Amino acid sequence: MRGTVLYGPHDVRFEERETPEIVEPTDAIIRIVATCVCGSDLWPYRGLQPITEPTPMGHEYCGIVEEVGRAVRSVKPGQFVIGSFATSDNTCPNCRYGYQSSCVHREFMTRAQAPVLRVPLADGTLVATPGVPSDDLIPSLLTTSDVLGTGWFAADAANVKPGSTVVVVGDGAVGLLGVLSARHMGAERIIAMSRHDARQRLAREFGATDIVTERGDAGVARIKEMTHGIGADSILECVGTQESMLQAIHAVRPGGSVGYVGVPHGVALDGQALFFAHVRLHGGPAPVRRYLPELIKLVWNGKMNPGKVFDLTLPLDQVAEGYRAMDERRAIKTLLRP
Amino acid sequence: MRGTVLYGPHDVRFEERETPEIVEPTDAIIRIVATCVCGSDLWPYRGLQPITEPTPMGHEYCGIVEEVGRAVRSVKPGQFVIGSFATSDNTCPNCRYGYQSSCVHREFMTRAQAPVLRVPLADGTLVATPGVPSDDLIPSLLTTSDVLGTGWFAADAANVKPGSTVVVVGDGAVGLLGVLSARHMGAERIIAMSRHDARQRLAREFGATDIVTERGDAGVARIKEMTHGIGADSILECVGTQESMLQAIHAVRPGGSVGYVGVPHGVALDGQALFFAHVRLHGGPAPVRRYLPELIKLVWNGKMNPGKVFDLTLPLDQVAEGYRAMDERRAIKTLLRP
Repeated sequence: MRGTVLYGPHDVRFEERETPEIVEPTDAIIRIVATCVCGSDLWPYRGLQPITEPTPMGHEYCGIVEEVGRAVRSVKPGQFVIGSFATSDNTCPNCRYGYQSSCVHREFMTRAQAPVLRVPLADGTLVATPGVPSDDLIPSLLTTSDVLGTGWFAADAANVKPGSTVVVVGDGAVGLLGVLSARHMGAERIIAMSRHDARQRLAREFGATDIVTERGDAGVARIKEMTHGIGADSILECVGTQESMLQAIHAVRPGGSVGYVGVPHGVALDGQALFFAHVRLHGGPAPVRRYLPELIKLVWNGKMNPGKVFDLTLPLDQVAEGYRAMDERRAIKTLLRP
Repeated sequence: MRGTVLYGPHDVRFEERETPEIVEPTDAIIRIVATCVCGSDLWPYRGLQPITEPTPMGHEYCGIVEEVGRAVRSVKPGQFVIGSFATSDNTCPNCRYGYQSSCVHREFMTRAQAPVLRVPLADGTLVATPGVPSDDLIPSLLTTSDVLGTGWFAADAANVKPGSTVVVVGDGAVGLLGVLSARHMGAERIIAMSRHDARQRLAREFGATDIVTERGDAGVARIKEMTHGIGADSILECVGTQESMLQAIHAVRPGGSVGYVGVPHGVALDGQALFFAHVRLHGGPAPVRRYLPELIKLVWNGKMNPGKVFDLTLPLDQVAEGYRAMDERRAIKTLLRP
């Protein structure tokens, strides 16, 4: 088969690789129905997170089970399944505590931009849908694998409650689905920070009540102005830079919460500033596996349509263009079909 | 009157100062019954937090109301009152959110090691006890003004729940009362990190089930060993150094919480390390005013005896010796009686 490999900055190739096979009795092999490019793929693509060797790419996936190892019990060939970007046994103390993305047996998936994928710990990683979905559901179901689960975790980590005032920092796909998640959790006011027309429109469609175009200190000043000088209850930080993190921490009210899901790159936080901000800080790799059953149900029953974040769909063999379009911000998120 | 003034490192004087008087109609004047030296007083005493001019000291206090301004409604002359180390109007949005120590009108108290004290925003800062207490209750009541409230906040911020496994970093008075607070909140296992005999004994008396004498990486390894490699549910960070903060963050389980109340000095946190630790981080100046009614009630009704942290009682005019004894770790905490 052919699969996606990153060779270096801006050098993505779709090339011949070995077709994956069952290795461990707990593995499953799935035929990918849809995969996509993640904002976090852009860090190495841009050379901001250097790679040392050609690296297979992709960690968001859904598809049909082709084969399972002899120890697999919960999924079987023919089922449509979705899995987290992080594998989990779903039985260890961290999994039982709801942090499957810190499973003691965790591996980060990294070969999903391909037609066939080996998924370790299939029983604890994959969730089957109620049936084989119709084609129009595929994009929304795919989002539950990472990007929706991550936006949802940002809102959950930021303690979004009915009536909350919420700020979302970052207008990428995760930020936009953070808006959708906050709306779904009952937030009253959702302020999206964005200076990009198409993303502002989608943010509003997903439930944003206000748009703030200012950034940094000016952005914080604007949020303070909109909240009677106090700050917002919940901030979803969906970028991962020093600027975005400080923007989040400075815009939250004392006792309020920042949920951060952008993988931090070069972020250093001053202890005394955090202390006097009285902020609650929680984040990390989203425990998508915890949310998968609930999110699949919401999508399956038509309660949310997160698939709208995909504004570009390409055949898998044009994956390089998918990366380019996101890098140049021509696309919010690229869906790839084998 | 004479009061306590810090002139520079290790130079505490008890000297003539103006007797405070009502300035604002919202003020109260109280005659101090007991005050004490705080661990945070030691930062400037040791020169680690430089002062630029002679600085009146003290922010933990209880006493009898002598006089109130014309706008004061909730306390009156003759009542025994306790107040937070931070003043609060108790009506602003931050106060109503439970963060009175971030009141928009907050002032940090700093003249309480004296026989007479002016308390601004008396209605929102002071709480009267049900009557004038007997002398044996005074030490415990005094702790509610800061040190108990701060230990309590550490446990609350660290989400201590019935059945929790808790680690307390720091065996000063705040850490010891963090142990007591965690016990009161129903923690099942409380591991106190201490290498000091007298403090270990008091920790056990307050409810610690285990003592760990190792520090830093060795301390973290010991905690991991005691928690099947997973880490503790809740960590109370009661010191404020880089080492203690990292010790806390590295010893918590994914999804667990660090409540930090030691004022951070020179603490810088790496964003990516926090991210992958999956830690919940919350701390700051304790919102003592929120807890005062509850804590006063617990002490008043004999449900807890936090006053045991005072292992040295001196007449107020010997305040300099009180600082010395704590600095040299001869005393856990010094109570001062005018």
